[in-house]
Amino acid sequence: MAIDRKSLVPALKNIATQLRIDSVRSTSEAGSGHPTSCCSMADLMAALFFAEMRFDPKDPKNPDSDRFILSKGHAAPILYAAWAEAGAFDRSDLLKLRRIDSDLEGHPTPRLPFVDVATGSLGQGICAAIGTALNARRIKSQYRTYVLLGDGETAEGSVWEAADIGAVDRLDNLCGITDVNALGQSRPTMWQHDMDQFARRWRAFGWHAIVIDGHDMTAILDAFEEARRTTGQPTMILARTIKGKGISFAEGKDGWHGKALKKGDEMERAIAELEKQIVPLAGGKELNLAAQIQKPASVSRPAESPKPVDAPSYKMGEQVATREAFGTALVKLGAADARVVVLDADVKNSTFSDKFEKAFPDRFYENFIAEQVMIGASMGLAARGAIPFPSTFACFLTRAADFIRMAAIGGNNIKLAGTHAGISIGEDGPSQMALEDLAIARAEPDYAVLYPSDAVCTERLITAMAARSGPAYIRLGRPKTPVIYSNDEKFPIGGLKVLRESNADVATVIGAGVTLFEALKAYDELKASGTSIRVIDLYSLAPIDRDGLIAAGRATGGHLITVEDHYASGGIGDAVAEAVADAGMTVHRLAVREIPRSGKPEELLDRFGISARHIVSAVRAHAGKTVGARS
Amino acid sequence: MAIDRKSLVPALKNIATQLRIDSVRSTSEAGSGHPTSCCSMADLMAALFFAEMRFDPKDPKNPDSDRFILSKGHAAPILYAAWAEAGAFDRSDLLKLRRIDSDLEGHPTPRLPFVDVATGSLGQGICAAIGTALNARRIKSQYRTYVLLGDGETAEGSVWEAADIGAVDRLDNLCGITDVNALGQSRPTMWQHDMDQFARRWRAFGWHAIVIDGHDMTAILDAFEEARRTTGQPTMILARTIKGKGISFAEGKDGWHGKALKKGDEMERAIAELEKQIVPLAGGKELNLAAQIQKPASVSRPAESPKPVDAPSYKMGEQVATREAFGTALVKLGAADARVVVLDADVKNSTFSDKFEKAFPDRFYENFIAEQVMIGASMGLAARGAIPFPSTFACFLTRAADFIRMAAIGGNNIKLAGTHAGISIGEDGPSQMALEDLAIARAEPDYAVLYPSDAVCTERLITAMAARSGPAYIRLGRPKTPVIYSNDEKFPIGGLKVLRESNADVATVIGAGVTLFEALKAYDELKASGTSIRVIDLYSLAPIDRDGLIAAGRATGGHLITVEDHYASGGIGDAVAEAVADAGMTVHRLAVREIPRSGKPEELLDRFGISARHIVSAVRAHAGKTVGARS
Repeated sequence: MAIDRKSLVPALKNIATQLRIDSVRSTSEAGSGHPTSCCSMADLMAALFFAEMRFDPKDPKNPDSDRFILSKGHAAPILYAAWAEAGAFDRSDLLKLRRIDSDLEGHPTPRLPFVDVATGSLGQGICAAIGTALNARRIKSQYRTYVLLGDGETAEGSVWEAADIGAVDRLDNLCGITDVNALGQSRPTMWQHDMDQFARRWRAFGWHAIVIDGHDMTAILDAFEEARRTTGQPTMILARTIKGKGISFAEGKDGWHGKALKKGDEMERAIAELEKQIVPLAGGKELNLAAQIQKPASVSRPAESPKPVDAPSYKMGEQVATREAFGTALVKLGAADARVVVLDADVKNSTFSDKFEKAFPDRFYENFIAEQVMIGASMGLAARGAIPFPSTFACFLTRAADFIRMAAIGGNNIKLAGTHAGISIGEDGPSQMALEDLAIARAEPDYAVLYPSDAVCTERLITAMAARSGPAYIRLGRPKTPVIYSNDEKFPIGGLKVLRESNADVATVIGAGVTLFEALKAYDELKASGTSIRVIDLYSLAPIDRDGLIAAGRATGGHLITVEDHYASGGIGDAVAEAVADAGMTVHRLAVREIPRSGKPEELLDRFGISARHIVSAVRAHAGKTVGARS
Repeated sequence: MAIDRKSLVPALKNIATQLRIDSVRSTSEAGSGHPTSCCSMADLMAALFFAEMRFDPKDPKNPDSDRFILSKGHAAPILYAAWAEAGAFDRSDLLKLRRIDSDLEGHPTPRLPFVDVATGSLGQGICAAIGTALNARRIKSQYRTYVLLGDGETAEGSVWEAADIGAVDRLDNLCGITDVNALGQSRPTMWQHDMDQFARRWRAFGWHAIVIDGHDMTAILDAFEEARRTTGQPTMILARTIKGKGISFAEGKDGWHGKALKKGDEMERAIAELEKQIVPLAGGKELNLAAQIQKPASVSRPAESPKPVDAPSYKMGEQVATREAFGTALVKLGAADARVVVLDADVKNSTFSDKFEKAFPDRFYENFIAEQVMIGASMGLAARGAIPFPSTFACFLTRAADFIRMAAIGGNNIKLAGTHAGISIGEDGPSQMALEDLAIARAEPDYAVLYPSDAVCTERLITAMAARSGPAYIRLGRPKTPVIYSNDEKFPIGGLKVLRESNADVATVIGAGVTLFEALKAYDELKASGTSIRVIDLYSLAPIDRDGLIAAGRATGGHLITVEDHYASGGIGDAVAEAVADAGMTVHRLAVREIPRSGKPEELLDRFGISARHIVSAVRAHAGKTVGARS
């Protein structure tokens, strides 16, 4: 900044006070919110937005713009106040906080152009910040990432996953700030104002830690400068602050968390106090700090436009696990599209994402055994234009279910891949078997949920996932399965394949993955005894081909039987049942209905009711009955 | 131990070698497993089981027995080998490892009497160990808890949540051991053999850290002794080890993770090598260490038998949020049953679990903002006889979805409570709204899933949850709702309540929580225009009253309409649809079908399609149609 410190500091202090006023006013108007959590961090925000960050308030998505992620999302009012102060929108809009007709929600979401990821579930913003920092490296940009956390938030384990990865990846373009205001929601925080507790943790995890008084503007500016000069490691600024700072009757007092000041006397008293804290400035118009925000460097870089992806090249009947085809698909996709990146949690030799690592080591990010930061970093990468494929065993994606949820809220363009689905993994036992992954992914409104059965379909779906905007999940299997599609077969998301059909079909059996092959076995067995069934490969659970399912149901006497290597709730059965419900059709479901155990895959499929034998029985039991389909 | 060190050390080394041999042999026989992960920790296991722990191999559930939790569950073969060596079962059973007819599964589960919690999802065992350590304090037992982790495992954030709580709660009866073998599944671990990286982390988190050579038996014994003498903080023994130790061709080599040695030459070579490492002992029968395992102290304590719980005492029509009734219920339950404990993640003033804290501070465990350790500790507490109620906002239980999954596998008797369900929380916005919690809980086979609508039902269900063995989840709301049941109403788990019925009902509307009240409003509105509907309070989603739903459907023309403050997948709609499917009935579902936003609760219910107005429309649109019910 061209402004000297002596003029800058009081100007920034005034902005901080203004941000406090705006936070109080907007939350009082809304009748709810967290004004005291805003007041503690106001000085930090003023310095960040009006003396430190390089960004264009009118073009927050600029690829070279510094990023700011508010990990303590409940302080949203001051985030909005800072952007308004910077000129992104009119300050009067702040009074629409939390209203249904405003995008200034209770916690930030990417409905706002300056928000990369939805926050409000603590400990996630810093994981996303890992992703935006990695992205700067990917696109060779000088932009920096700033992420502000609450002190209570650092109890979340995900914070320490991010701490490890930030240090291992030597992300010196990443600067964290912890607002140590010592008060949680229901009580004082674990370490309150014992700053050494914080410093020693961050230092132990390999970060450059700077302890400051978070209301000393000079110290704040110095800390940011020190962080910028720090190389080879990320920085965490640990700022000792007072919750409710500036409002005498709330300052440092427990019991004020998440409470708006009452509109009227209470609010007016606070605002009057705050207004008195605004000091006259010596300077003139050079102190319009908003006008002097440093814009991002203008960098021209080639457009990242994808080329066509190489087609699958398998032989019909070849035995290939879908997880293996996934690895092959990633390499082809990576060659065609530079935006594609892959993240692992130390299972790359099982998921076959190591194929991508070998081909594109610079776009492969190892997260060791830390699924939360893997998904969180993916969210940050996606927010900045990468197309991330985080993958691990499907059961361990459950570890990051809350990130999967928040990615849905943020609409982040992440492509989750979960391998080793279901009991068909065999001997490793239930802890390694994903049997609720479809339920978790399908629960979120905007996820594409895909489940290929062979290698051709897998490759096609990986390409389709990358091309489709928004979050997606693909479920992959451990065992080898035969290739059943020709290499030029197309698999649009939202489709299905009818693999067996005749005019005499007495039932439709719907499977995916290993159960599709059980259905085909059942078909052969029934055929031999003179009974025909229709067999559907439901490779897309969400969106789902409602019309195709209803047509099959109508053609087969309304008899729909689903079979899945998943628990009975939330998977194929529920997906089909809802799709055909309005056509008056019901579904008979074969699924895993109890906690499984170790054993050979084929033993388990049979024991837990999803093998060909069970399908044959279900067809024989149900196909004779009228199950109430409208025709 | 009465045996002198000079005799003890070689005897323990021999046992360690035997455990290696058993691990190799059993995994080779199974054709899969993790023998090299067992070999690195064999010396630690020998010392723990045969010189350190006090337990009775024939009575592993003894309340005063030391606990051992294998957090790195993939090393199950050596756990089984140690218990066999101690005399818990015959060594020949080890060769049934991973077979469908054996409880010696690929990863440990509580099917085995000496396993407290299922492990195999890394980073969970240490959280459970917090729980067993807290339980010792609860029952005033001198037993100690030992938990063994892998080094790669410490990348999981949940480990650091446990680290914080262990230190804050000053759990000096807890001793962790990290087997630092430097090799993960797919590559060297983050810090490999840089022992200082581990030591400084644990010390920063307030633990007493001891760095040793994990193959130096004297150092191991000294470390355990030092841990036992350490007061006011837990201890972490950081043991530098070699993966595959004892097998020259696998020792310290990458690429051996999760690979059994091939039966035949490869296995025989390893076993021959290991057998050569067994040294002749000077002593005689006093070196039968298994026979000399120190038994737990025999402590007599009164049986923890529950008294009757005080009945609810509300006035009909009184406005009480179910979360508030939850707090009241916990206090009544806590007074009646000393086994009841409550865990919080810094939201106790919102969930009302602070009522329990005030009444029973010794049985209330604060976990700050760390949901994974809250659930994990609950699993450990439950395994030792407590009845834990961990609670937070329902959306933040998602953070611990993988623990919820593993608690299902382990059948742990935990009682999850999630408050602030759904869009009816209003202005805080989507990050704070649980809309997939029912999907997650219902996906697991053995969870009871409960959803009360008023205060009386809430109190009754909390009592019922505690009385029922096994995991359970209760969903609670933020807004106040009227009391609609008399204080003596009974709510058996697996039941439902028909609130409105007549012979002229044209449809059955099924809701719970806030939507039940929307259904009652719709009833009034429809009634005024001459249409009758049946209204059902589905307070138990799992188990579910199939017969009651089918009876209602049959009585109302097969028209079933569900309405829920939850996403469309996995909640009330799917639960009802599956329950009535075999009766040939289909269900029309009103649910939240897109990402919601901030706004007033009533605005949101209407905007997202689950208010009385939408129910009225759905009844009018559907009740005229034939929807294919068999009668």
